[in-house]
Amino acid sequence: MTEKFPDTVTVSPVGSMDLLSQLEVAKLRDVGRGDLRERLRRCALAVLNTGSQLDDARAVFERYADFRIELLQVERGIRLRLQNAPAQAFVDGELIHGIREHLFAVLRDVVYVSNEIEGRNGLDTPAAMTDAVFQILRNARVLKTRTPPDLVVCWGGHSIGREEYDFSKSVGYHLGLRGLNICTGCGPGAMKGPMKGAAVAHAKQRIRDGRYVGVTEPGIIAAEPPNPLVNELVIMPDIEKRLEAFTRFGHGIIVFPGGAGTTEELFYVLGILLNPANRELPFPLVLAGPGSAAPYFEQVDRFLRGTIGPEATQRYQVILDDAERVARVMRRGLAEVKEYRRDKGDAWFFNWRLRVEADFQQPFLPTHEAMAALDLSREQPPHQLAANLRRAFSGIVAGNVKDEGIRRIEEHGPFELRGDREIMDLMDALLQAFVAQHRMRLPGFEYRPCYRLVA
Amino acid sequence: MTEKFPDTVTVSPVGSMDLLSQLEVAKLRDVGRGDLRERLRRCALAVLNTGSQLDDARAVFERYADFRIELLQVERGIRLRLQNAPAQAFVDGELIHGIREHLFAVLRDVVYVSNEIEGRNGLDTPAAMTDAVFQILRNARVLKTRTPPDLVVCWGGHSIGREEYDFSKSVGYHLGLRGLNICTGCGPGAMKGPMKGAAVAHAKQRIRDGRYVGVTEPGIIAAEPPNPLVNELVIMPDIEKRLEAFTRFGHGIIVFPGGAGTTEELFYVLGILLNPANRELPFPLVLAGPGSAAPYFEQVDRFLRGTIGPEATQRYQVILDDAERVARVMRRGLAEVKEYRRDKGDAWFFNWRLRVEADFQQPFLPTHEAMAALDLSREQPPHQLAANLRRAFSGIVAGNVKDEGIRRIEEHGPFELRGDREIMDLMDALLQAFVAQHRMRLPGFEYRPCYRLVA
Amino acid sequence: MTEKFPDTVTVSPVGSMDLLSQLEVAKLRDVGRGDLRERLRRCALAVLNTGSQLDDARAVFERYADFRIELLQVERGIRLRLQNAPAQAFVDGELIHGIREHLFAVLRDVVYVSNEIEGRNGLDTPAAMTDAVFQILRNARVLKTRTPPDLVVCWGGHSIGREEYDFSKSVGYHLGLRGLNICTGCGPGAMKGPMKGAAVAHAKQRIRDGRYVGVTEPGIIAAEPPNPLVNELVIMPDIEKRLEAFTRFGHGIIVFPGGAGTTEELFYVLGILLNPANRELPFPLVLAGPGSAAPYFEQVDRFLRGTIGPEATQRYQVILDDAERVARVMRRGLAEVKEYRRDKGDAWFFNWRLRVEADFQQPFLPTHEAMAALDLSREQPPHQLAANLRRAFSGIVAGNVKDEGIRRIEEHGPFELRGDREIMDLMDALLQAFVAQHRMRLPGFEYRPCYRLVA
Amino acid sequence: MTEKFPDTVTVSPVGSMDLLSQLEVAKLRDVGRGDLRERLRRCALAVLNTGSQLDDARAVFERYADFRIELLQVERGIRLRLQNAPAQAFVDGELIHGIREHLFAVLRDVVYVSNEIEGRNGLDTPAAMTDAVFQILRNARVLKTRTPPDLVVCWGGHSIGREEYDFSKSVGYHLGLRGLNICTGCGPGAMKGPMKGAAVAHAKQRIRDGRYVGVTEPGIIAAEPPNPLVNELVIMPDIEKRLEAFTRFGHGIIVFPGGAGTTEELFYVLGILLNPANRELPFPLVLAGPGSAAPYFEQVDRFLRGTIGPEATQRYQVILDDAERVARVMRRGLAEVKEYRRDKGDAWFFNWRLRVEADFQQPFLPTHEAMAALDLSREQPPHQLAANLRRAFSGIVAGNVKDEGIRRIEEHGPFELRGDREIMDLMDALLQAFVAQHRMRLPGFEYRPCYRLVA
Repeated sequence: MTEKFPDTVTVSPVGSMDLLSQLEVAKLRDVGRGDLRERLRRCALAVLNTGSQLDDARAVFERYADFRIELLQVERGIRLRLQNAPAQAFVDGELIHGIREHLFAVLRDVVYVSNEIEGRNGLDTPAAMTDAVFQILRNARVLKTRTPPDLVVCWGGHSIGREEYDFSKSVGYHLGLRGLNICTGCGPGAMKGPMKGAAVAHAKQRIRDGRYVGVTEPGIIAAEPPNPLVNELVIMPDIEKRLEAFTRFGHGIIVFPGGAGTTEELFYVLGILLNPANRELPFPLVLAGPGSAAPYFEQVDRFLRGTIGPEATQRYQVILDDAERVARVMRRGLAEVKEYRRDKGDAWFFNWRLRVEADFQQPFLPTHEAMAALDLSREQPPHQLAANLRRAFSGIVAGNVKDEGIRRIEEHGPFELRGDREIMDLMDALLQAFVAQHRMRLPGFEYRPCYRLVA
Repeated sequence: MTEKFPDTVTVSPVGSMDLLSQLEVAKLRDVGRGDLRERLRRCALAVLNTGSQLDDARAVFERYADFRIELLQVERGIRLRLQNAPAQAFVDGELIHGIREHLFAVLRDVVYVSNEIEGRNGLDTPAAMTDAVFQILRNARVLKTRTPPDLVVCWGGHSIGREEYDFSKSVGYHLGLRGLNICTGCGPGAMKGPMKGAAVAHAKQRIRDGRYVGVTEPGIIAAEPPNPLVNELVIMPDIEKRLEAFTRFGHGIIVFPGGAGTTEELFYVLGILLNPANRELPFPLVLAGPGSAAPYFEQVDRFLRGTIGPEATQRYQVILDDAERVARVMRRGLAEVKEYRRDKGDAWFFNWRLRVEADFQQPFLPTHEAMAALDLSREQPPHQLAANLRRAFSGIVAGNVKDEGIRRIEEHGPFELRGDREIMDLMDALLQAFVAQHRMRLPGFEYRPCYRLVA
Repeated sequence: MTEKFPDTVTVSPVGSMDLLSQLEVAKLRDVGRGDLRERLRRCALAVLNTGSQLDDARAVFERYADFRIELLQVERGIRLRLQNAPAQAFVDGELIHGIREHLFAVLRDVVYVSNEIEGRNGLDTPAAMTDAVFQILRNARVLKTRTPPDLVVCWGGHSIGREEYDFSKSVGYHLGLRGLNICTGCGPGAMKGPMKGAAVAHAKQRIRDGRYVGVTEPGIIAAEPPNPLVNELVIMPDIEKRLEAFTRFGHGIIVFPGGAGTTEELFYVLGILLNPANRELPFPLVLAGPGSAAPYFEQVDRFLRGTIGPEATQRYQVILDDAERVARVMRRGLAEVKEYRRDKGDAWFFNWRLRVEADFQQPFLPTHEAMAALDLSREQPPHQLAANLRRAFSGIVAGNVKDEGIRRIEEHGPFELRGDREIMDLMDALLQAFVAQHRMRLPGFEYRPCYRLVA
Repeated sequence: MTEKFPDTVTVSPVGSMDLLSQLEVAKLRDVGRGDLRERLRRCALAVLNTGSQLDDARAVFERYADFRIELLQVERGIRLRLQNAPAQAFVDGELIHGIREHLFAVLRDVVYVSNEIEGRNGLDTPAAMTDAVFQILRNARVLKTRTPPDLVVCWGGHSIGREEYDFSKSVGYHLGLRGLNICTGCGPGAMKGPMKGAAVAHAKQRIRDGRYVGVTEPGIIAAEPPNPLVNELVIMPDIEKRLEAFTRFGHGIIVFPGGAGTTEELFYVLGILLNPANRELPFPLVLAGPGSAAPYFEQVDRFLRGTIGPEATQRYQVILDDAERVARVMRRGLAEVKEYRRDKGDAWFFNWRLRVEADFQQPFLPTHEAMAALDLSREQPPHQLAANLRRAFSGIVAGNVKDEGIRRIEEHGPFELRGDREIMDLMDALLQAFVAQHRMRLPGFEYRPCYRLVA
């Protein structure tokens, strides 16, 4: 699985990248700013490395330190030239077609964001940030104008046990039998299971255009590379836009057991749904797992109640041990979304009406200072506490699996998080359980916490 | 898995059955001959029962003795009305689309054969029997005129262990990565594994029209119902036409470990390839399995050498423990088939040039008399011995899993097979090994031999 | 327009003819009965001769007396080899694709009818004849199961003036703007105008799958070859099945000015609609022309009233000088057909419920004896008189433009038709007007009557 | 033809405009700058007015002075609301689909250019102007990456006689029979004929995706509205980008007889081909007309020789009275283009290699001052004279049919053009012939020259 493909391979573009102007190609080739070039190289490596058993971004980058990607300008457009790419991406010397699509999705999104989004003025208002999310999704051609709500976002850990994985697959299967499509963060575990299940069900129902949408971001893609089932891949520029994409673009969410990342996602969506402006919006949200995950969900429930309060728990439903029921509940929920949007004249393809405050949109850079400065006390409204807890878990994910985060931890030791004793105790219990259950890293790797809780 | 769907369900046709004349519908409704009506009911039950854990046709029929299927004539055409159908075929009260296709494939083939084929005069010449095979395949719309050789037939046991199953899946995966399609006898085990593997690979390669062709016959379909991945289903009228369909319609064959049925298939294809008229024809034939299957293939090889002679073994290649190599060898073999047919101006879609003698075409009805009368001695040319051994194993399959065969054994005791001592000894060794390895029936069922060997 | 393409050209099949069994190809090649082979040659010549300015079948056949068509058997199927074909069918040596489709439609229908229909027993009951019409249409793949009523049959003269032609084109245009499709007898004049108009309108409405269905028969195809706009061509075996196809397969009929053939068609449809069994059936029937055609329609109206009585005139509507209104009326009529069939559960694609009596189905061979024996007296029920008048006009068409008819007239002189004085006088007036208005033959040819009326 | 549709009609977008962000819609609605709003209104009116018999932009605008177009913002995107639109654009109250496409093409291009192109910095370098042409074409989705050269640009007068029109139709027919596609300036006359002919031929060849591309600009669209056959419409921001689009996007050019506009086009393409940098580029250019157009082409030829010299005449070929030969020559020419681009690795979809100097790219605003200042003397290199003559004829077109030009002439009298006597004499002769032949305006309108030549 870790062999390299020694030859130089030249790859032609697919999708929208096959029609570039000469100025655009020149600009691409001039990608002179070291960080953009490196971002491209790393994301490209990640999609080529799909299927690997590593969730440590740094280890991936080190193993393929000599991987080279180069843009060639030919009169007709561009080519990508690869060297020392992971061998598993090839069949008899040919790049697997799905991976080739992912490669050019990376090029498309990294460059589009750099050229069209980042250079804009006034990008920091909520409306402008939402607009950027929309633009990136549209440019990736994943918005479908005529399709009623059918896209189910599945969140959950990349590192889960066989039983939980099989359950997530079974849920995907029952969703697929009902003609629903899947959107995930596109890594392994709970991000892969539902797609696999849905793919089998779509085949049985003779649905040939089933959608397996992966939404990722440059920091996480190496640790959780898209599995090749993903047939629509979008790389959002940061975790906050990725989360906003999930909530505006998907029509309902299922949360499987997971670790810090899943908890971050839960605080994100609940923080938004707690916003009174969103009170009336139908938004199907189901927490689901096998019977054996009952203690997990109880603990999560306890944590949520103990931090942002019981009101939050009104917005979701927990279903254990009944994959088919999850699918039935989700289908009913989507029918409500459909009816609501039809009544209001809303678009199917983007939830414009959902209010997302700047707190949840501003990119959070988890430095030691930023982490230490987070206010994790009860002395703030619940949705603000949710925003801060979201950031705290986001930082922990970075320290666990993201290249930059790992480096920071190595250099400066664990992050310090401060807050009310009660909150810190709840958090400590939750995180210890995650560690014990191997939810922080893939099994086989010893977990060394990247955080320290201070009451 | 054994629940029944209590309501009456009315199903509209898909495929070619949605355009019938009033006379045709009337004829269908008049299906008054009890045996045709019953054949239809049983085949329909079989496809509705897909996924079940039973390989005993009689048990299936008994469990669903109150299953009813009725043809309704409406002005627009026909409808099928089902009652007490297996519940697993439905999702929220709707028949799964793939199963609906299978249901009408059954109606199409059973009726077409009855109306168009069986009534013909002079059906018993080799040319006419081959023509019937072609007509049924064409009527089922599975012949593709413009596609170069890409259809790989996979044979092997319906009852195999996890390791062999996973290997067959892996072979399917590597075939699928190379754009090849799969044709099997459409039951579980080695008939399902390659399709599942290929489906994943096709998804990765973004092949949306991957083919998973199932070719079955009324006697076997209940014991080995098509899994719903099968997206093209054909029910041939008897085992001999089914075998001829495999060899003329498929472009290469892979044989995984199996039991009596697989041995029947091996004798069929080798008996034909031993025919001097077919000596020049390229015909990729690979025997493949995991490393642990080495003893199995050695025993099969010994049996073949000891019966029809070493020449037969020249026509196949054994590959162990290397699924990717199986796929590469098969791809090379198909390239030779393509080149040969192009040179000769042959059709891609049907191997007209293959000579099949009447010995291999005449339906064999395994009564106790017929079985006892088989000449299993060395005093005949190898291809004739192959034809008789093919019949012997065909009878054993019937006695193991086919409804009629099981009844015969219950009534009259095991079949008697007679032959040279040496052949009988080899056969005894082979069959005992099959029993010991649980290749005769699905695990969990005690096996009681349906045959007795007499030297 | 009358050049020949000297080279031998080999043409591969399109459509259903590209998948034949070896027995079928052999049977095709053995088309040994001289008349079938000649029928094939003549129909093939007719479709290759499209666009020619000749409506005299005999002249066409004489000019291309050395045209050869041959069936070649190759391993993959069949090829057609042409020699001395009309040059206009080729572009830079390649057969125009639409004409190639027509060529294989000829092969398909002539052979299918010969093999599958004519050999049947008991073909002479009304139900069996209707079944044959259905089978031929289905085999030609022109029956669409899911499309609501949208097929407008346009009848009218092949020899009409510019003004009438332009009007028919304008009607076609307004039908096409409303998404309706066209079916005609597929010659020039009123059979071409509506298709041309509809094609422009379909392009404006971005309808890419507009249907221009031509239904012809071997006797008439040479005089009125399909124009290449026809994208679905069916050759019915005789004029009676052709007329039945129009009325069962089309959803409404527009009659433009014409000559004897159009009058035959009018008597056919009115004779059937006079049948009390059809009284309730909605059947939009419009007689339409430019303002200048008013006298024509008055005379036709007078003739119909004077022969089969005023009741017949209740079933149609005359619209002059308003092409758009014709289209609007037809659209409304089709909406009624749709509603009726939905209420009754009838098929969209074939009007099974229409009662057609044997009188209108039995092929009529217009020999001198048969023509002289026709009972054209008032002493019979109107629908029977309609049947006989239909036959009388059918004979006149044959004498005018069909090869066999022309020969008969040359040999034995004009047909004699006998009847009541009043009917004969009306008929005489009508036919003389047709002659004066050049409706019997294309302009530029002197018309010599092929009939003699005897009171 | 000049009725108005009184009701208010609300139209939903087709094509790329059905997926706009809320910011984009808001920006569209704020189209507050009076001139953009008015440009949109006029272009919209032009496409709704298709088929009208007016080529006087001002008259069109005056007749429909009360035509209103309004953008509505709904949650899902935008709608257009029309009032007092030309009635001919509707069928039973529904906008014809092709016209609806044109309407949104107008919105798309006018807004895209305003938002994305005009605001850019440094738009005035040749590379940037070419890039703008490319961007607009790509945004309109008319660039096809995988199609070899097959797009034939047809230039010629909007006001030509029946014989010339029929010839242009016949050329289109023979191009269409050869599978070639058509691109024109999308008005009547020689811009419509080839499309009509090609449409018939495409139907005969069963080509369903025939392309009829119209490239226009806001100043000319009202005088020469796209006929609805145009199934891909692009509105370039000015005449110079329109001409550059023709030469880079088309693969060959046929010039039919025309007036001042056609002469402008000829000077454009010849001026560019005279550039030594383009000497090696294959570029099929054919001047074609019926036999009766011989004097016209002789005069044009004389004028070209007398102004920019005989070298220019090497780059084109004149073909008279043989429409099929025009098509054959063009097909051969395209084959050379294909071979050349394949050798060089050039794109099929855009002729990047063609050198176009700033002289031919800078928008020329034909004021009286600018016209009077044009240097039409021999004392300059031929390609520069060509550039100036191009501008002179461009100004005459504006004075003839463009709204703004007509107003200027009314206000200030005819343009004055100065130059060498010899050139002025040639020009005088040419223009007088155009007037005499009714090539300056549609027949039925008296022509009053908008220019005065001063030697």
